[in-house]
Amino acid sequence: MAESKAAGYQTQTIYQKRRTVVYDWMAREGISLAMLEDSEGRRDSSIRYLCGMPADALLFLSVDRRAVLVPWDIHIAKLYADADHLKPYADFNRQPINACVKTAELLKLAPNSRIELPAATSYPLFLKYVEALSGYDAICREDAGLARELETQRSVKDEAEIKIYRTAGKITTLIAAQIEKMLRGGKIKTETDAALFIEAECRKHGCESTSFETLAAGPARSFAIHAFPAWTAETFGGSGLSILDFGVKYGGYCTDVTLTIARSPTKAQERLIALVEKARKIVLSKIKAGYSSVDAALLVEGIFGRAHKSMPHALGHGIGLDPHETPVLRVREPGCILEKNMVLAIEPGLYDPVIGGCRLENDYLVTEDGLEALTDTGIVYL
Amino acid sequence: MAESKAAGYQTQTIYQKRRTVVYDWMAREGISLAMLEDSEGRRDSSIRYLCGMPADALLFLSVDRRAVLVPWDIHIAKLYADADHLKPYADFNRQPINACVKTAELLKLAPNSRIELPAATSYPLFLKYVEALSGYDAICREDAGLARELETQRSVKDEAEIKIYRTAGKITTLIAAQIEKMLRGGKIKTETDAALFIEAECRKHGCESTSFETLAAGPARSFAIHAFPAWTAETFGGSGLSILDFGVKYGGYCTDVTLTIARSPTKAQERLIALVEKARKIVLSKIKAGYSSVDAALLVEGIFGRAHKSMPHALGHGIGLDPHETPVLRVREPGCILEKNMVLAIEPGLYDPVIGGCRLENDYLVTEDGLEALTDTGIVYL
Repeated sequence: MAESKAAGYQTQTIYQKRRTVVYDWMAREGISLAMLEDSEGRRDSSIRYLCGMPADALLFLSVDRRAVLVPWDIHIAKLYADADHLKPYADFNRQPINACVKTAELLKLAPNSRIELPAATSYPLFLKYVEALSGYDAICREDAGLARELETQRSVKDEAEIKIYRTAGKITTLIAAQIEKMLRGGKIKTETDAALFIEAECRKHGCESTSFETLAAGPARSFAIHAFPAWTAETFGGSGLSILDFGVKYGGYCTDVTLTIARSPTKAQERLIALVEKARKIVLSKIKAGYSSVDAALLVEGIFGRAHKSMPHALGHGIGLDPHETPVLRVREPGCILEKNMVLAIEPGLYDPVIGGCRLENDYLVTEDGLEALTDTGIVYL
Repeated sequence: MAESKAAGYQTQTIYQKRRTVVYDWMAREGISLAMLEDSEGRRDSSIRYLCGMPADALLFLSVDRRAVLVPWDIHIAKLYADADHLKPYADFNRQPINACVKTAELLKLAPNSRIELPAATSYPLFLKYVEALSGYDAICREDAGLARELETQRSVKDEAEIKIYRTAGKITTLIAAQIEKMLRGGKIKTETDAALFIEAECRKHGCESTSFETLAAGPARSFAIHAFPAWTAETFGGSGLSILDFGVKYGGYCTDVTLTIARSPTKAQERLIALVEKARKIVLSKIKAGYSSVDAALLVEGIFGRAHKSMPHALGHGIGLDPHETPVLRVREPGCILEKNMVLAIEPGLYDPVIGGCRLENDYLVTEDGLEALTDTGIVYL
């Protein structure tokens, strides 16, 4: 590795372009300084989106178009991040409030300037910020704030991101195909075998990690949406329905697919699979730019409902630097109109405590005409 | 796995005992209802601590000693959780605010009753709760609130937890010893080899997972406190200093150890190791119940400072259901007086962008006389 960077690293220009969109938004909103925080328990991938820093940091953006990065680890920041100023966290006694006050001073903010704090700032903590920033107008917003704005900005992928996703999707499909072959050949026998193969294989392709803890659940556990524990040393792919839900993180971006493995399925299990496959086929043929997320979810709910079944989770979700991003495809309002260049994981599934679960999930790029499949996985019959 | 539970599952009695401490505290504080939330982006292991539920859920505790659990996945809850009422999340349209309002009604809370919301509730969200709970007195506190109270309660382990930790520690030490042997025998050659061995081996011993993403950093990357990416397909244990930071999660509880692997170290690297070992030895001989967390950190800072070095992270931290818990052992106030039955990870380390890093970390139970080592790992000379 030496001084080389992880795969999929993006150019400085991309980060500056993304920050420009934020600066323009700040100017319209009358925000002088915006603060983002990515720390344990308060993860925010928008820092990585805006400057490339892949680890704990604070990021301050000022409306006069300067980005101040305060990383926990200055060495990692020097290797990965693009910012106008790099300030070690230790300079602020490792206190986010202190860093915010000092940065406002460093940037010579005028009195009463509007400072937007992270939307996730807790109520008690916000009161402390307000006190420490008493010379300014500190705000913390959800619905109209920067976090929501960045969710929207990030939901439509730019060229650099789509390029990464085409590669990430290929790696994911390749790994799924290898798993299918190994299951057939008896080389994957346990949940551990499946999970470890993914962990090792994705890194051989330059991925930095899996996108979330792989869920490998044999027939006795596939009824759970998210099996607990996620995977064990027990056998995998035995008689009935097994679920393998995984993704890779390439250049920071997450894929998310689910294979259902069916061995000697019963009639009831075959009907479950057929119903999920039917719903998948129909909904995939409908979604395109301009289609509504609520309509997509209602369509599947209708198909399942007519068979007296219901899906205990959303139909799908955006993916990106996080494995779950905006938009969510669910029946509840408010939904959204799907846009060109959104990247979605679509995952119809049905679960039954007796016969087990079936989920089919792939990733798609939304286009004007429909969906471009980024991954290609499905039912594996053994 | 069938219907069997993961290893280390605790008895109903333990959860009820823990909740009793909370109910007593609520009575003293005049809190009628307390809400906890464990969801994506808002993790709170206190739900697992109080009722055993290991996955997404809301938990409501009422001062009349009733626990209402609202799980995302009812099947998992039925298998693992102990609560007086189990209410599917779907009953509340999957809206935490709705669940809170309806639970207050279900429990027949008197008007103006005090309802304590999670301390992590964001400022904008808290305003929404206040509006929805307009007939009650909704509060959200950090310093004197339930979250802080639970941090304190959880920092001192009970008998069930100490029993789990003795087993978890043995598994961790065993895995570390195997890794040492495999490194010597040339069976672990890459960061992937080391990380995957831990993932597989811990599950063979009944662990549900590792406690965090293993950090395996060869000589070119060991300068970082937390290497990025955490581990890669590159070689591990080459000339110089490599770091392997890992832990296992057994019965929900996390261990956290770090091995430093030294192959043909230079004089400068040997001096770095000797200094970290010296600091470790001295501080371990001092810590016992009644000792101050700040004093412990200052002691190590002094030893490093006299050699013109400084440690870029805390000396140690509590471990438990989370890999980082209260207390933190650092030089900054406010510290705390260490108590009997706290479980601590102590991790002196020094890092240099040129010569690499050395961190030595083990887990200890605080006793009246000193520290009982739960794990036994150290420098591996190759």
